[in-house]
Amino acid sequence: MKILIVGGKGTIGKKVSDHFSKKHDVIIAGRSSGDVQVDIADSQSIAAMFEAVGKVDAVVCIAGEAKWAAFDAMTEEDFYIGLRSKLMGQVNLVRIGQAYVNAGGSFTLTTGILADDPVVSTTSAAMVNGAIHSFVKAACLELKNGIRINVVSSGLVEDAVERYEAYFPGHNPIPMKKVVNGYVRSVAGKGTGEIIRIYDNR
Amino acid sequence: MKILIVGGKGTIGKKVSDHFSKKHDVIIAGRSSGDVQVDIADSQSIAAMFEAVGKVDAVVCIAGEAKWAAFDAMTEEDFYIGLRSKLMGQVNLVRIGQAYVNAGGSFTLTTGILADDPVVSTTSAAMVNGAIHSFVKAACLELKNGIRINVVSSGLVEDAVERYEAYFPGHNPIPMKKVVNGYVRSVAGKGTGEIIRIYDNR
Repeated sequence: MKILIVGGKGTIGKKVSDHFSKKHDVIIAGRSSGDVQVDIADSQSIAAMFEAVGKVDAVVCIAGEAKWAAFDAMTEEDFYIGLRSKLMGQVNLVRIGQAYVNAGGSFTLTTGILADDPVVSTTSAAMVNGAIHSFVKAACLELKNGIRINVVSSGLVEDAVERYEAYFPGHNPIPMKKVVNGYVRSVAGKGTGEIIRIYDNR
Repeated sequence: MKILIVGGKGTIGKKVSDHFSKKHDVIIAGRSSGDVQVDIADSQSIAAMFEAVGKVDAVVCIAGEAKWAAFDAMTEEDFYIGLRSKLMGQVNLVRIGQAYVNAGGSFTLTTGILADDPVVSTTSAAMVNGAIHSFVKAACLELKNGIRINVVSSGLVEDAVERYEAYFPGHNPIPMKKVVNGYVRSVAGKGTGEIIRIYDNR
């Protein structure tokens, strides 16, 4: 398979890219690193990326940002950071990319546990994640040529514990191997419209 | 209680307003009707509305729009209609309105079954609804002075069947009395962070 991994050099992205690279032709897209550059907050940049990469069998997105701050400190513009990047970035990737995915291929997006189980200072990040979950359920009804779409939503991942654990009291870290398997299930499985939740809350 | 109902003249809004008006002081806000005018897609208009209305015990929002169209016909700008109106309109109502709600008061937002169970042509509407569900769960962790926040998500309501039934094959209409009760549970109950689902799918 020819697999385009947007954000393939990030914390989760590099583990996912390493895994798929063993048996597949992986193209990594990143804002400043990787094989091709893309700013997912800019739909023209997304279109240019697909024009450069051409047809693929799978698109995996592990990119996009959202502002983390106390709700009473969030401005309207702060919310739009996440709406333009992590939300519309992923929506535009599907909207534009559907013409570049081979029949039976797939999109795999990324959210996180905040959609279902938010913590303090994540009104924007939670909202964006919840939006993508419902988008995936709706988009799977309309994608053509057997193209599938799923989203991987994991809890606090092991490799990000140092940076984020203060935000997630009592959350059990998710081993990177389990996170990678979420992407494998989406890309190599046959499911569509799935929210692949990788949580360990209890 | 002094209750501000944004969209209080709409299909659901008029039934909710009629109910609360029996025992409470209800102020109806609408784009062109009601006691005070507001365009919820414009945060300055929201601020002006609260300035005019003053302190309230409950804010109910049954307003906001999103574009319904086939996914492959949706432009980026089409998605922003829902993001600016039904999504950020409701977020801004809470963001700005938190200073105008009395201690122990509440916000009640509105989404719909598309968040959980979308139909064709609703990628944008589903996404906005899912976003609000996660936003409510996140915002309830941070609102101060005991202010609560919930969202009512109902299936195809009885009074909208004629206009929308073609979009919802096999969906059982929800009686208006049950829909109104969702708002009553949020405003008069003590729950917070709740997604009050009023579905009848099976």
